[in-house]
Amino acid sequence: MKTIKIGLLGLGNIGTGSYKTLEMNRDEIEKSSGLDLRITKILEKDTKRKRDVTVSPEQFTQTPSEIFNDPEIKIVIELLGGIEPAATYMEEAMKHGKSVVTANKASVAANFDRLTKAAKENNVMFRYEASVGGGIPILNAITTVLKANKYEEVLGILNGTTNYILTQMTDYGLEYDDVLKIAQEKGFAEADPTADVEGIDCANKLSILMALTFGNYVPPTEIPREGISGITKQNIKNAKAKGCKIKLISSAKKVGDHIEYSVKPMELPDSHPLASVSNEFNAIFIKGNAVGELMFYGKGAGPLPTGSAIMGDVLEIAKIYGAHE
Amino acid sequence: MKTIKIGLLGLGNIGTGSYKTLEMNRDEIEKSSGLDLRITKILEKDTKRKRDVTVSPEQFTQTPSEIFNDPEIKIVIELLGGIEPAATYMEEAMKHGKSVVTANKASVAANFDRLTKAAKENNVMFRYEASVGGGIPILNAITTVLKANKYEEVLGILNGTTNYILTQMTDYGLEYDDVLKIAQEKGFAEADPTADVEGIDCANKLSILMALTFGNYVPPTEIPREGISGITKQNIKNAKAKGCKIKLISSAKKVGDHIEYSVKPMELPDSHPLASVSNEFNAIFIKGNAVGELMFYGKGAGPLPTGSAIMGDVLEIAKIYGAHE
Repeated sequence: MKTIKIGLLGLGNIGTGSYKTLEMNRDEIEKSSGLDLRITKILEKDTKRKRDVTVSPEQFTQTPSEIFNDPEIKIVIELLGGIEPAATYMEEAMKHGKSVVTANKASVAANFDRLTKAAKENNVMFRYEASVGGGIPILNAITTVLKANKYEEVLGILNGTTNYILTQMTDYGLEYDDVLKIAQEKGFAEADPTADVEGIDCANKLSILMALTFGNYVPPTEIPREGISGITKQNIKNAKAKGCKIKLISSAKKVGDHIEYSVKPMELPDSHPLASVSNEFNAIFIKGNAVGELMFYGKGAGPLPTGSAIMGDVLEIAKIYGAHE
Repeated sequence: MKTIKIGLLGLGNIGTGSYKTLEMNRDEIEKSSGLDLRITKILEKDTKRKRDVTVSPEQFTQTPSEIFNDPEIKIVIELLGGIEPAATYMEEAMKHGKSVVTANKASVAANFDRLTKAAKENNVMFRYEASVGGGIPILNAITTVLKANKYEEVLGILNGTTNYILTQMTDYGLEYDDVLKIAQEKGFAEADPTADVEGIDCANKLSILMALTFGNYVPPTEIPREGISGITKQNIKNAKAKGCKIKLISSAKKVGDHIEYSVKPMELPDSHPLASVSNEFNAIFIKGNAVGELMFYGKGAGPLPTGSAIMGDVLEIAKIYGAHE
């Protein structure tokens, strides 16, 4: 069996989830691909943290170049989070002939042209399925088997934290601040929730979706956005009285020859399929001129759903290396 | 630009929809793939029928071998319907070194081992996305980017005709026979509706789904099935009183080390995501041990949604030929 060696940047929650997905499904992955995938080096400072995976001390490194300069490593998984140094590390890995897989929407959205160009110039693959919709395989669908369509619209609930907060406000009649506190205690919201609640995370994801559906990259900072921190118990109550639910909707639509796009809270009638997408779930609508309306629904975050998307991308790249080397 | 020539078996509704998908999105397909896809030969007796596409008389042939023996044709699309001669034609095309794309669930399900073996032996590609869920890109997802999962369950509404009939019976309180007649008049049901209403079509699709998710091929004739022709207005009313809807559900689930599977009408609570899948729409749930629950929703039939899946498969194959020849 051929071995494909992988370098991993970051062994936090998502890194651990990806590592675990590979470990627990190794037999299935080997059976379907005929390949032995091995994460041989991991860039991570915190080598002592107790994790639910088996990592030996010699896998850890504090030096990114040890991964970039390792000629045996074919694929680099970037799970550091944040725009930099992630983008520079991804570019560096590509320059060293390695294909890159990431879940990092902030870094991909901010550097879309730079990173896709680097992949092309260095003749490597660059995949980021996990960056939009977590485990939902939406990016692969819109870039491959749906490509015989002209896309007309893409619209969705792209952030699990805000959807959790809005669902809890709706179900229990609570105020925003009270639900945010609960969400933070349960680990559904971060200590600084700004990126989620102000729609920044959604804008990153919408920027990536627009680049792939319409071939039209708009930097996330240029996407009009409104978050949910201004939504009150009373707003939710008023919507309810009209038979509606408030959802944070990211949308882009072809109107004539330009594209209208925004991230903002919207009132959706209860009968709308997105109205029943609750708590941490995500859902994405796509409209194509041949296929009509499609919806994809699933867990938009979490170590294992994200790990599924990361390892799915790795597997697709590894199969190509396995077939050609 | 490289040209990839294609042979088409059958220019009925789905054949015309596939041809039209290629025509109307030719610019988009060329831009994304850098390839010029051309349907050069069409096996079809009815050359006179008025169709919504531009076909010149010299594209038609009555002789399948003219397509199989044409060294310029790289891909054959089979849209004849029926188990035979479709399977023999697909096998013949593969023996002549052509990759095959089909929407024919009956023929694929009845000949799964034979056709996948023929593809392997002749080193060609064999794709059948359109055979399950019409335009919904479910087969590509479960065979590629979700492959880092162990599948636990697959469950869905896989037949648009029966879902249309059950939806109309529910919404208007009508009897089965009356709705069937309306569905036939509107073209949603065939003159002989047996394959749809008795669950045969669903069993074909479930057979394919099981082969791809669990690696466990069960011939459709061995899948326990119950159709909807015995469902009465009263059954629907009783379900409604319990807050439920009756849906024709195809399901397969891992229980210990074996798989339980069936096609049968089931009462689903109104809150179940599949309960709100109405009329001709299809939806498929997949549960994987990493990704958790995913749902895919869209049009399960119709010339253009099916054409989207057919041409998506063709495009994936063409891209590989384009890159390597």
